[in-house]
Amino acid sequence: MVFAGLDDLLKQLSQFRYSDQNLRYLEKLGFNPHFLEYLKHFHFSGTIFSVREGELVFPNEPILRVEGNIIEAQLIETLLLNILNFQSLIATKAFRIKLVCGEKTFADFGLRRAHGAGGIQASRAAIIGGASSTSNVQAGFLYDIPVSGTMAHSWVQSFEDELTSFRQYARNNPLNTILLVDTYDTVRSGIPNAIIVAKELEASGNQLVGIRLDSGDLAYFSKKGRKMLDSAGLQYVKIFASNQLNEYVIQSLNEQHAPIDGFGIGTELITGKPDAALDGVYKLALCDNKPRMKISENIEKMTYPARKSLYRFYDSDGNFFRDGILLENQDPDKCKFIFDPVHPEKWTDISGLRRELLHTKVFQKSTIIEPLASAQQAHLYLMSRVSLLPSEHKRFIMPHIYKVGISKELLEARDQLRNKISNRSAAL
Amino acid sequence: MVFAGLDDLLKQLSQFRYSDQNLRYLEKLGFNPHFLEYLKHFHFSGTIFSVREGELVFPNEPILRVEGNIIEAQLIETLLLNILNFQSLIATKAFRIKLVCGEKTFADFGLRRAHGAGGIQASRAAIIGGASSTSNVQAGFLYDIPVSGTMAHSWVQSFEDELTSFRQYARNNPLNTILLVDTYDTVRSGIPNAIIVAKELEASGNQLVGIRLDSGDLAYFSKKGRKMLDSAGLQYVKIFASNQLNEYVIQSLNEQHAPIDGFGIGTELITGKPDAALDGVYKLALCDNKPRMKISENIEKMTYPARKSLYRFYDSDGNFFRDGILLENQDPDKCKFIFDPVHPEKWTDISGLRRELLHTKVFQKSTIIEPLASAQQAHLYLMSRVSLLPSEHKRFIMPHIYKVGISKELLEARDQLRNKISNRSAAL
Repeated sequence: MVFAGLDDLLKQLSQFRYSDQNLRYLEKLGFNPHFLEYLKHFHFSGTIFSVREGELVFPNEPILRVEGNIIEAQLIETLLLNILNFQSLIATKAFRIKLVCGEKTFADFGLRRAHGAGGIQASRAAIIGGASSTSNVQAGFLYDIPVSGTMAHSWVQSFEDELTSFRQYARNNPLNTILLVDTYDTVRSGIPNAIIVAKELEASGNQLVGIRLDSGDLAYFSKKGRKMLDSAGLQYVKIFASNQLNEYVIQSLNEQHAPIDGFGIGTELITGKPDAALDGVYKLALCDNKPRMKISENIEKMTYPARKSLYRFYDSDGNFFRDGILLENQDPDKCKFIFDPVHPEKWTDISGLRRELLHTKVFQKSTIIEPLASAQQAHLYLMSRVSLLPSEHKRFIMPHIYKVGISKELLEARDQLRNKISNRSAAL
Repeated sequence: MVFAGLDDLLKQLSQFRYSDQNLRYLEKLGFNPHFLEYLKHFHFSGTIFSVREGELVFPNEPILRVEGNIIEAQLIETLLLNILNFQSLIATKAFRIKLVCGEKTFADFGLRRAHGAGGIQASRAAIIGGASSTSNVQAGFLYDIPVSGTMAHSWVQSFEDELTSFRQYARNNPLNTILLVDTYDTVRSGIPNAIIVAKELEASGNQLVGIRLDSGDLAYFSKKGRKMLDSAGLQYVKIFASNQLNEYVIQSLNEQHAPIDGFGIGTELITGKPDAALDGVYKLALCDNKPRMKISENIEKMTYPARKSLYRFYDSDGNFFRDGILLENQDPDKCKFIFDPVHPEKWTDISGLRRELLHTKVFQKSTIIEPLASAQQAHLYLMSRVSLLPSEHKRFIMPHIYKVGISKELLEARDQLRNKISNRSAAL
């Protein structure tokens, strides 16, 4: 998973307040006046340790550690999960698309299919994952990320005929004309008209940037279009494609050598399909300085107790080898082995390996510890990390699972607490 | 589909402005100063006709008609689609869950897995579709919809032992205690402790409202829990369940007679899984008083030209029979037949049937035409409509498709315009 959302979370936490209107509403719901008085002066004063935006993280890792009094740590739970789950989902989806696009670019075209106002946050996460730009101008305004766009079908339809619409568009945008060619008939009308306008642009010293296909079989029409453009001497005109794309369709188009130079991706990217949600959780691990855990009826819902640190270990080639979760108060130099949390008879020798602490302090005393990464910086960080992740972990089909182990000390702390709780239940 | 989002859309349209900051950003992007001057004074002055929130609508219907100058009609496109697609998706998902819940209730528990700020809008849509309440207090505050919630695992974990946590919760909420019983061990710890607290509540003249199961097999644990509660004389204590529920799981639990009284539904409801998006589109149909249409390479992407009205026709039992799309300027009294738009050799005689115009004017002269429906009113309207939809259309598996026809006049207008466009392409 590509971790994203930290910038948004910390900014919202630093401004987290209850307005007078909020308090009147809560009073109407019947909350205790003492509690409302507490909320009136509430601000989040806890401390947060986190991995960086753009970091690659793996299942069951403590990505973020929140320390604070129980009320403040609890009040922020839903906000924190809402922001981090969603933005990490989208950054991860964008990254999967980036993996198949390689040197080709793709733009986020998703806002009209996004989940309401969440689409604004999603566009930033898409940039972290690898989108080169977004059609979401509001996100461009808010986050200073690159915006781009092409004409709509309605532009073409608003003129009496397609050629006139293309000419007018080129007149308005001589330096950045991309013509949408499928409004009426791609091969018989759209591409021939685009070629006419390309020649007219040449005559005035400009160049048509590209055409965009938005329906039909994209492999067929891109090959046909490439041939038509090349025959007209327009080898420089690019072909862009959109329409229900995702990483699998792009992979397939690439296998067929579809001559497409860039993609516009909407629904699948901006909703993180098919998952549509990321099931990150926020769990109490320490209270009154005593370790806590949840057991539950599903083994995978069992949590790790106590303050923990997340380390990444490197192999001798300098690539990612294992992640390890250690107790925060144990000496990592003395940690020689990490264990599979479910099958602890499986372990890995990590002694002597270079390690990296992935947590840094990002929030303290109601203040963000600067600098936060911009979306573009987080993307560059992601790409630097991706280059260190062996490729067998990046396959879509049956990838080799990157292993995350826990230290002997954490294993023992978990098992002791679990036994203590089980014995208490048995005694009832 | 359950139509939702109109309230939000119209409120946002009535406030749609470009701030000075927005304009400075657009200037930096290179927009023409004349256009920026136009945007500076921009407000949406068009007219909107729409079906009501909570209405049942069907594929290819013009749900909403926007009339205005081309720039304003275009500038609102993404906002309109973003709001209506998403909120209709969620209202529809909630309604599907409502269909299987019947008299049982369900609450929206989704915010932590929602798509960022979109979760706020989603909670209102969930109420329209049939959720009885939401755990999203911000949505309760903004939309005046019912809120509810139960304890978190962290509440239980924050105490030394489960029984103490239950007692403290009951002391704080004697009138509304629902105890989460799966933190450590449902059968050996959670339910026995809940029974102790229920008896203590009885002693002080109160009643435990219920227990909540959040892991394990919900059929097994609800039956086990019902038996344990009943044996303790606690027949009145309800059983609530949550954990990755959707309409299919609930249907299956019902078939097994799981004694669950209410459901908390998170991820699946709030993300509208598995679809995660609704592909509504916004298309130009008339310009300079001339009909317009898009043909495209995919037949299902072809649009209907001209101003249209949407009618619902009733059978002699007073149930929904067919929907019909007519040209707005044709006399509906003289429309005797409607035709299948793809296979016009199939037609339906609608002469003499009671009909209902589904469009009403909702926005004019920059102003919302009141009253807008509240979420609860829209839900009541939905339920009144659902009772008129024959049940064969409500099956999940292979439902009988509710038919939508178009008038002869619209069919001819479409075919004429298509031929005109095709001839123009052929002449190139």
